[in-house]
Amino acid sequence: MYTLEQILQIVEFHIEQINYNRQPQNLYSPVHYILSLGGKRIRPALMLMACNLYSDGVEEAIKPAIGMEIFHNFTLLHDDLMDKADKRRNQLTVHKKWNANRAILSGDAMLILAYQFIGNTKTPLLKSILDIFTKTAMEICEGQQYDMDFEQRQDVTEDEYIEMIRLKTAVLIACCLQSGALIGGASNKDAMKLFQTGIYTGLAFQLQDDLLDTFGDPHSFGKEIGGDIICNKKTFLHLQMMQRASDAQKAIIHDVQSDINCPPEEKIAVIKSIYETLGVREITNDRILNYYNRAMQELIGLNLPVERLRMFNGTIDMLLGRKS
Amino acid sequence: MYTLEQILQIVEFHIEQINYNRQPQNLYSPVHYILSLGGKRIRPALMLMACNLYSDGVEEAIKPAIGMEIFHNFTLLHDDLMDKADKRRNQLTVHKKWNANRAILSGDAMLILAYQFIGNTKTPLLKSILDIFTKTAMEICEGQQYDMDFEQRQDVTEDEYIEMIRLKTAVLIACCLQSGALIGGASNKDAMKLFQTGIYTGLAFQLQDDLLDTFGDPHSFGKEIGGDIICNKKTFLHLQMMQRASDAQKAIIHDVQSDINCPPEEKIAVIKSIYETLGVREITNDRILNYYNRAMQELIGLNLPVERLRMFNGTIDMLLGRKS
Repeated sequence: MYTLEQILQIVEFHIEQINYNRQPQNLYSPVHYILSLGGKRIRPALMLMACNLYSDGVEEAIKPAIGMEIFHNFTLLHDDLMDKADKRRNQLTVHKKWNANRAILSGDAMLILAYQFIGNTKTPLLKSILDIFTKTAMEICEGQQYDMDFEQRQDVTEDEYIEMIRLKTAVLIACCLQSGALIGGASNKDAMKLFQTGIYTGLAFQLQDDLLDTFGDPHSFGKEIGGDIICNKKTFLHLQMMQRASDAQKAIIHDVQSDINCPPEEKIAVIKSIYETLGVREITNDRILNYYNRAMQELIGLNLPVERLRMFNGTIDMLLGRKS
Repeated sequence: MYTLEQILQIVEFHIEQINYNRQPQNLYSPVHYILSLGGKRIRPALMLMACNLYSDGVEEAIKPAIGMEIFHNFTLLHDDLMDKADKRRNQLTVHKKWNANRAILSGDAMLILAYQFIGNTKTPLLKSILDIFTKTAMEICEGQQYDMDFEQRQDVTEDEYIEMIRLKTAVLIACCLQSGALIGGASNKDAMKLFQTGIYTGLAFQLQDDLLDTFGDPHSFGKEIGGDIICNKKTFLHLQMMQRASDAQKAIIHDVQSDINCPPEEKIAVIKSIYETLGVREITNDRILNYYNRAMQELIGLNLPVERLRMFNGTIDMLLGRKS
């Protein structure tokens, strides 16, 4: 069985092998740029590991797994443009480094490139993997639209938020696990369990990200701490706070959120202290643990040799920043 | 064999059958909107007719053909955004009716929807049709990038222009003919001849469009006459003019093109009269005829019954506005 380190080497090697020496250069250079910015390569790594649960070799899953990573980077590219984000992984976003048109068109090219790689799935499985991926890709667009819709709404419920992050974040991780398992030779039943593992892992992963945005270590988080608070983003933490806040607290929240002259560090400090008072940090950690346990429960149902599952669990632990 | 009218009815029926009652509505309403604006449905019609050249039924080609039309409308949606066009088929473009983000994301959803439809190709051909489509889709992005690159360049050659319109316009028509023929049961050799027919037809079609933009009948053209001249667009006509203009004429062209206060109708009249003086209209018509003849030449090589080819030729004639 491959170690996570070996899997990541395979992924990185194949991403470097992508041929960008095509014309016109103005179309392909942003594709090269964003794929070279790094990232944890979680999705292709999980896909190859899911394949490796059922098959000693992972060769057949490599091209589709790279396709999933290209697709993920396409979503980042277009989302950054729609969100007007200036930085991604401490580098300029594509629309900032070049312009909006380059970001639109090279993003489109990446979506097509993703299909090109996923289209290399071996023939008997091609139709199933394509169907799973296409359904997933459409759901991710739906998730992004909900995310943008929620910016305009004040009445977003917890259930709606969970559904949004399921679509925007969890389904791609689930799709990678399900597809990787199928390519490795898993039964449809096992592949569905891995899909569910992916959903719970993805939900835990996103809530972890919400939590780290406020309570993370500035050095290891990679983004500025408090970004979600500054943008009044309706994260899981925010929704929990609003459910529990007293009228007096709601008035304070309203004041700092609507005061455009409030210094960012003050806004962060005020909201963070209300989070602490209301136990929002613990509530979020509990929910993360709940999703983590449900992911593990699905894995137990797989009836695979313990040593195969151990490495796989270790990857999920690493992804969620858990000490395993 | 189906008549063109019957083919168009099939196409329109299946476009109306697309289910837009999905959530979130903000994602799907622009998809419904642009697909309801009409258009000649040339690409799916040609795909079904190419299928019908080899097979009495066209059922197997319908879903992929609708996919090609969805893809074509996706390119219009994103191109209109990149070109900052206000109107499409006399209606507001998506980014004008809503906003840029809705146009980006619903365009992305349409590209995925196109793959969903094309993914319904019957299994033994799925891989080939997917590969042909993906190659085509990437080339269309390349064509759009060249088109945007050319706006910044003064030294675009005729060969570069023809290559740009081959990528941006001709390859999708060629892809539809090739794929339709393959689904109908054509040999790879015949399908390649139909691909070439599509390339020549597409080139003729685009040059015809360039010509009509200046010399068309305002009522039947559907867009404002002279738009290309107003935008200083480097069309085939413009490149022919620049190849042949005297220094005195070049000075006049430079003056009207760089004078932002020059009234549009004066600019159109000046350039149009230089086109006429230099025979640009005839040169363009000759080139259209040349491509048309080459398209017909490919068809003759197919060795199909005359009555099957006649209807097919009639469609190409109609597409090119020729009296057959």
